Amino acid sequence: MEFLVRMDIEFPPELTSDEMGELYAAEAAQAKVLATEGTLVRLWRIPGRRSNWGLWRAEDATSLHEALTSLPLWKYMDVEVSAMARHPNDPGVEQR
Amino acid sequence: MEFLVRMDIEFPPELTSDEMGELYAAEAAQAKVLATEGTLVRLWRIPGRRSNWGLWRAEDATSLHEALTSLPLWKYMDVEVSAMARHPNDPGVEQR
Amino acid sequence: MEFLVRMDIEFPPELTSDEMGELYAAEAAQAKVLATEGTLVRLWRIPGRRSNWGLWRAEDATSLHEALTSLPLWKYMDVEVSAMARHPNDPGVEQR
Amino acid sequence: MEFLVRMDIEFPPELTSDEMGELYAAEAAQAKVLATEGTLVRLWRIPGRRSNWGLWRAEDATSLHEALTSLPLWKYMDVEVSAMARHPNDPGVEQR
Amino acid sequence: MEFLVRMDIEFPPELTSDEMGELYAAEAAQAKVLATEGTLVRLWRIPGRRSNWGLWRAEDATSLHEALTSLPLWKYMDVEVSAMARHPNDPGVEQR
Amino acid sequence: MEFLVRMDIEFPPELTSDEMGELYAAEAAQAKVLATEGTLVRLWRIPGRRSNWGLWRAEDATSLHEALTSLPLWKYMDVEVSAMARHPNDPGVEQR
Amino acid sequence: MEFLVRMDIEFPPELTSDEMGELYAAEAAQAKVLATEGTLVRLWRIPGRRSNWGLWRAEDATSLHEALTSLPLWKYMDVEVSAMARHPNDPGVEQR
Amino acid sequence: MEFLVRMDIEFPPELTSDEMGELYAAEAAQAKVLATEGTLVRLWRIPGRRSNWGLWRAEDATSLHEALTSLPLWKYMDVEVSAMARHPNDPGVEQR
Amino acid sequence: MEFLVRMDIEFPPELTSDEMGELYAAEAAQAKVLATEGTLVRLWRIPGRRSNWGLWRAEDATSLHEALTSLPLWKYMDVEVSAMARHPNDPGVEQR
Amino acid sequence: MEFLVRMDIEFPPELTSDEMGELYAAEAAQAKVLATEGTLVRLWRIPGRRSNWGLWRAEDATSLHEALTSLPLWKYMDVEVSAMARHPNDPGVEQR
Repeated sequence: MEFLVRMDIEFPPELTSDEMGELYAAEAAQAKVLATEGTLVRLWRIPGRRSNWGLWRAEDATSLHEALTSLPLWKYMDVEVSAMARHPNDPGVEQR
Repeated sequence: MEFLVRMDIEFPPELTSDEMGELYAAEAAQAKVLATEGTLVRLWRIPGRRSNWGLWRAEDATSLHEALTSLPLWKYMDVEVSAMARHPNDPGVEQR
Repeated sequence: MEFLVRMDIEFPPELTSDEMGELYAAEAAQAKVLATEGTLVRLWRIPGRRSNWGLWRAEDATSLHEALTSLPLWKYMDVEVSAMARHPNDPGVEQR
Repeated sequence: MEFLVRMDIEFPPELTSDEMGELYAAEAAQAKVLATEGTLVRLWRIPGRRSNWGLWRAEDATSLHEALTSLPLWKYMDVEVSAMARHPNDPGVEQR
Repeated sequence: MEFLVRMDIEFPPELTSDEMGELYAAEAAQAKVLATEGTLVRLWRIPGRRSNWGLWRAEDATSLHEALTSLPLWKYMDVEVSAMARHPNDPGVEQR
Repeated sequence: MEFLVRMDIEFPPELTSDEMGELYAAEAAQAKVLATEGTLVRLWRIPGRRSNWGLWRAEDATSLHEALTSLPLWKYMDVEVSAMARHPNDPGVEQR
Repeated sequence: MEFLVRMDIEFPPELTSDEMGELYAAEAAQAKVLATEGTLVRLWRIPGRRSNWGLWRAEDATSLHEALTSLPLWKYMDVEVSAMARHPNDPGVEQR
Repeated sequence: MEFLVRMDIEFPPELTSDEMGELYAAEAAQAKVLATEGTLVRLWRIPGRRSNWGLWRAEDATSLHEALTSLPLWKYMDVEVSAMARHPNDPGVEQR
Repeated sequence: MEFLVRMDIEFPPELTSDEMGELYAAEAAQAKVLATEGTLVRLWRIPGRRSNWGLWRAEDATSLHEALTSLPLWKYMDVEVSAMARHPNDPGVEQR
Repeated sequence: MEFLVRMDIEFPPELTSDEMGELYAAEAAQAKVLATEGTLVRLWRIPGRRSNWGLWRAEDATSLHEALTSLPLWKYMDVEVSAMARHPNDPGVEQR
């Protein structure tokens, strides 16, 4: 099942640049893990913001929740999940 | 450049089932054209609604507008376009 | 998988009381079918409105969409679907 | 009388992981008490968030308020209560 | 149990002044019935609008729904119901 | 003149339980004063929240403002005031 | 007592230019009456819209409602009334 | 040119009563200056809140911005400005 | 003075393609007039919609209102005007 | 490609006037760089606020994001980007 997920990140003011750098590195590593296992499919940055839209694949909302909360930045995120249904006109998995 | 696009369709009450059927067939045909040329990449139905989210690719907002307005259902749609930037953690084009 | 679904019904002004009565009867019959197959689990009326909240069970958003659009009143509804994850403190299936 | 209740939890930044752990344990214990007495009927996690929807049963809004404020996490919650009426198409108490 | 209820009335454009007059007369009569039985306690007009706030008393949301839908104007109304709990500082039933 | 007033209380995180207790006691005392002089007519708790709806009576918005700001909790409140007009179907002052 | 009032006018599509012209003339005449009696104090057009903000003076919300509903355009308006209190820094009645 | 301006004041929690008192005195003094030069025309308190609506006169939005930011409380304010056009039914400058 | 203006066009369903074509031609002609006199400075289409953002220049909100209402499509538009102030970092009039 | 961008700046309370001064100077310098390279085309202040609307030019949303995040004030901003399409009635690059 596919989900569209919007994430808005808000850091507490006391976080240092170093701590942010470490968090971003850990986030990238965990995103790679989730991409490899096929849970994180696509990720787009919303321009001008610490926000993104992502396409995620999971068996159900419970396993999606586990994937999302495995992200090191999760506790600084506001997350909105929308469950997607198949559309008859969907071109399907893309081939560029 | 990639765009996330949300479409909400609202039909005028006087449209007959036959007219709707023809519109949907024409829509499917044009969606296929746009998919073949690489403009329409993915399309998801929002469950319970005559609405969808789509992933679109176009050189800029002007050519995206042309693609969107080429859809037979466009005049019954409310459309919201969001321009996406590349995210460093994006797994990229999917291979299932 | 479980979903919370909110439905708001709006009838076109030209619908007669008789047509409404028939629609409601057909709706009740189809709701019974969906309840028997375990898709429609609970249904609550929002007081003062032609609206309801429902608890639905379906394999994924695609089969939920099929169930929702099988309702005779669907074309007069505005529907919002929220996919639910399991909560560790959920008492589970109720026994009164 | 049944109520649908949405809870959004927001922790103050200074709360330690240990304090959170204790709060969650206390919350689970109190949820069990409320479930046993039949006040908390179902609880669903909203995926990606520290939020939940719940189905609650109470004699009236005053006793519901007492149940909700008995939760150890209550003071960190934003809570929205909706009173539900019986719907003629409700399948009723579920039997799986 | 007490409820605060907001009603916004919107008439279809084709309703004549005579039909409106009859509806308002029937509405006043039914409001009197509901007041006499103690269901409708107070009613305030929102200035400048065909809208009102009311204080209602009913055993639960189901009987409130019955009272609200007994109003001749109900089918032209958008209604929002909020269940109220007892407040320790409430002066209680008023005596002027 | 009558006013419907909604209050949402938000305490700063550093407030101790003792300070809160004192504030609530002072609030109850001042609410009694305002009730005695006929300014505070009814007060309902919004279930699950530190919020209330109230029915207030004052000569005009200026004297209502004075009454509201005399409350010890006022500086922690977000307050929304709605001026009410007389409704022809109002049952008037209640007698239980 | 003073009120800030926002009006948004929406005409039904079937209204002819002539009917609109007559309505506007009647509106101007009634606005003059209300200005002369001191109820309508100031009126500003919201640029680009059939909308206005006005400063009104009335004994209470009930007499304001009577003034507003005396306007020939009232039945095509959406009206929002805000009761104003005296501000200590108000320069008071203007002298240009 | 005339502008309607809404201001919502929010003080940081660490501000002492004395500092607030000084700020309010300085605000009153500067409001008087702006009133004398004809920039601040009217000011109304929104009952129950640290908020106000004001009628301002300035050559354009740039000089209005200068006037608004000259207020000692400006840095604690959220300000919304609406440019007003002349309305043909405006009674004009008031004479009480 | 400069204004940012957003326009959303909604056509009544009974408008024929021919009537729309004539309206668009008349709109283009009047837009040219307003551009020549320096009132309409820039116009951008919001992709996927019958909507636009524009940069307008006018002496004040009253003359802007006259310019906007001179557009043949005005009666089908919902228009939102925002008055702009000069920004110290504005690169000023563009030279490409 | 052109973008309309809205920025709302919110400073943390602990920032001193000196730090703000330095930030504003650095912001002005970087705005000049972006204007010289043709990325920042116009910038308007929203009167009464620490907010602005800007017209930006960039190859795509990714390079726009880089330009926006190069601003020294970026980390204190809430930014909303809207991609613009060409409008047939656009007067084009302005000549004053």
